[in-house]
Amino acid sequence: MAAEKNNIPYKIYLSEDEMPKAWYNVRADMKNKPAPLLNPGTGEAMGFEDLRPVFCDELVRQELDNDTPFIPIPQEIRDFYKMYRPSPLVRAYCLEEKLQTPAKIYYKFEGNNTSGSHKLNSAIAQAYYAKQQGLKGVTTETGAGQWGTALSMACAYLGLDCKVYMVKVSYEQKPFRREVMRTYGASVTPSPSMDTAIGRKILEEHPGTTGSLGCAISEAVEVATSTPGYRYVLGSVLNQVLLHQSVIGLETKAALDKYGIEPDIIIGCAGGGSNLGGLISPFMGEKLRGEKDYRIIAVEPASCPSFTRGKFAYDFCDTGKVCPLAKMYTLGSGFIPSPNHAGGLRYHGMSSILSQLYHDGYMEATSVEQTRVFEAAEMFARVEGILPAPESSHAIRVAIDEALKCKEAGEEKTIVFGLTGTGYFDMVAYEKFHNGEMSDYIPTDEELGKSFASLPQVPGQA
Amino acid sequence: MAAEKNNIPYKIYLSEDEMPKAWYNVRADMKNKPAPLLNPGTGEAMGFEDLRPVFCDELVRQELDNDTPFIPIPQEIRDFYKMYRPSPLVRAYCLEEKLQTPAKIYYKFEGNNTSGSHKLNSAIAQAYYAKQQGLKGVTTETGAGQWGTALSMACAYLGLDCKVYMVKVSYEQKPFRREVMRTYGASVTPSPSMDTAIGRKILEEHPGTTGSLGCAISEAVEVATSTPGYRYVLGSVLNQVLLHQSVIGLETKAALDKYGIEPDIIIGCAGGGSNLGGLISPFMGEKLRGEKDYRIIAVEPASCPSFTRGKFAYDFCDTGKVCPLAKMYTLGSGFIPSPNHAGGLRYHGMSSILSQLYHDGYMEATSVEQTRVFEAAEMFARVEGILPAPESSHAIRVAIDEALKCKEAGEEKTIVFGLTGTGYFDMVAYEKFHNGEMSDYIPTDEELGKSFASLPQVPGQA
Repeated sequence: MAAEKNNIPYKIYLSEDEMPKAWYNVRADMKNKPAPLLNPGTGEAMGFEDLRPVFCDELVRQELDNDTPFIPIPQEIRDFYKMYRPSPLVRAYCLEEKLQTPAKIYYKFEGNNTSGSHKLNSAIAQAYYAKQQGLKGVTTETGAGQWGTALSMACAYLGLDCKVYMVKVSYEQKPFRREVMRTYGASVTPSPSMDTAIGRKILEEHPGTTGSLGCAISEAVEVATSTPGYRYVLGSVLNQVLLHQSVIGLETKAALDKYGIEPDIIIGCAGGGSNLGGLISPFMGEKLRGEKDYRIIAVEPASCPSFTRGKFAYDFCDTGKVCPLAKMYTLGSGFIPSPNHAGGLRYHGMSSILSQLYHDGYMEATSVEQTRVFEAAEMFARVEGILPAPESSHAIRVAIDEALKCKEAGEEKTIVFGLTGTGYFDMVAYEKFHNGEMSDYIPTDEELGKSFASLPQVPGQA
Repeated sequence: MAAEKNNIPYKIYLSEDEMPKAWYNVRADMKNKPAPLLNPGTGEAMGFEDLRPVFCDELVRQELDNDTPFIPIPQEIRDFYKMYRPSPLVRAYCLEEKLQTPAKIYYKFEGNNTSGSHKLNSAIAQAYYAKQQGLKGVTTETGAGQWGTALSMACAYLGLDCKVYMVKVSYEQKPFRREVMRTYGASVTPSPSMDTAIGRKILEEHPGTTGSLGCAISEAVEVATSTPGYRYVLGSVLNQVLLHQSVIGLETKAALDKYGIEPDIIIGCAGGGSNLGGLISPFMGEKLRGEKDYRIIAVEPASCPSFTRGKFAYDFCDTGKVCPLAKMYTLGSGFIPSPNHAGGLRYHGMSSILSQLYHDGYMEATSVEQTRVFEAAEMFARVEGILPAPESSHAIRVAIDEALKCKEAGEEKTIVFGLTGTGYFDMVAYEKFHNGEMSDYIPTDEELGKSFASLPQVPGQA
């Protein structure tokens, strides 16, 4: 190992002029394109004019563009990226030694910015196009708070107003996340709130509710579409988000290529799919074009298993059912993970792009239980020195499992995984783990059956 | 600015082989050496044998070595450094633009690691020498928690036991800091505790006390000296710590030299002096040797003004008076900053090296009030994207003030400051600031007079 250490540094940093100048749109290389968004009322595919009231024009164009392979990154966004990018591709020498594996493990670390995650890559892009369009502000929802923080940072930088609807349970349990957003000048409202018709309706029907992501989305969309000069932005799931996040994969690929490294396995955690989709994009492109083959593995929590136990169907994106329908692997928009689920990745659905790719057999998916996730997180923190977010630790878990398989088989595979962020605001979950108060939860078939019953009736859908 | 942006990147990263291979010991270039530690009982200067019961042998040697200019960094420490170093030297283009100043501002950012600060640079060194000596573990104190976290990380990496005495008020107000340390396997005890004789004595005399750094030091030293196989380690103040922290300044200087940049002003916040001492070391060396001249500014809180209002005298390092006496700028070991002081940097004394250099006129010092510090912190976060620690924000405040003076005078000075860490665990203080609940506090001359009365009687001391 010592000799090789001299060749491959602990951290590969690209120079600023090696950073991507265009995002890569994996849809251009997909034979089966992701299904279009549908109007929930009419069941018709939604076009540019239908989506304009919700999203900025340029983002609608990006959302609908299934053909252009490379979309230039505007200079102002590239300048912003330089404040925290390129992010390092880290060779996990210490983890390899701890595991005594012949596998070579790399991770792309996206946590070196104040939002603590990769979310900033899309936040700045969405805020930029809103600003370009002359808007006054944007609205959004946030659960754990990473997306809300990222968007607040982007809006502060550009001088845009930012209204965040934060799932009430997180608002109360994570006052520090809220305070970071306030530092960046955002207004943060616990959801459901009395500010919106949908919030008032939900509160009336469920007076004690602590909220959900789907509900916060409904509120943010309502405010955006009813306030002049505002649009709604979303941190995951959408095609445009995966496009922006391709910067992760492009940098990863450039760093690997620079050192002549060929990955065998690429692993990412998957909630709505923004990180996974971004990380794998250029590799998936090669696979789709038949140039290369990689094992690509999505990792999701056993308590919210969209890929591994969900249905591939059109579903509502939000609880209030005000958003378009998306075709995706879904557990049903009524699905809410058990309250003892501490590991993030709680969304009921999955990116349409990734859903299509999974459906077509281009990637694998696996689910892991949260105590095993936190075991991996703690081991990783101790040897690699980075305290990982629970979400990211799903990928760590499977990377470790694959590295241990290599050890058994004596195989020198190269594993790359996405370390999406840091866990500084997740210490309540870590505390549960340390105190032995964390339990695993797997929804029963009966529970899933119930939430599948909420799937909408769409022509052609079984 | 656009043309220049093409020459000087937003972030200057050295490559791993450009990282320092030896620490720089500024004492070697000082004509007036820092005064020796004294035995509090006898008033005699403490030598190798006197200090061995408290510190590891190699660290005692480093503590006492006033002559060797460069001390090699062992390979294992250099490997650990590679997990989070080299840290970036950032050109604050966005802050410059916000201020519309002709000044060029750079900051050395030490917050890109899980401890959230520069403390890790010395933690790994001290843990390494403890391990080399075959010890079982180390003890220490922590206030805000950065040092305790750093030491926990270093000990986890090397497989050493780590016992942290955490100032009780922080233990209670910062449960997340505590939990991070537990993630790294450290035991964390609120101080004062019933574990130690000194803790029991303090609790008996002051039943309701929420503790102090000086008291936690006393407990940690007692445990280290009474437990076989343990030694005590300290995160600031000591000569050895400034030696290890010289890695900050050496990297900064190498990065500046690489781009032919000559700083005019170098600014650092000062609590015990570890960051400031590390950052300025190689620049101070040039100044001491008469090769260069720089303005070097120490920034401290107006509520804990050791340099600007303290006495240069021998004093106790801890409340329990079990530690050696150190000659330093001090407010008296009985001094405790007002409870409304939220900005860190609470230690009553200052590094002996820095105290001597300040006394000899090689550096300036200034103090700032905390609301102005948080105003600077928030402005910085919004334009530079990094949420700074309150401590670090003292340096930001003065860097901004100096940049504004340049604007008035139309001077194109180059300002370098140390951004020691991130403020993710300081959101209670930020919240106070946002809610307008933060007030400034400056101790009266009478209050300082009282705490000066606790200065020990030492032969030759006025």
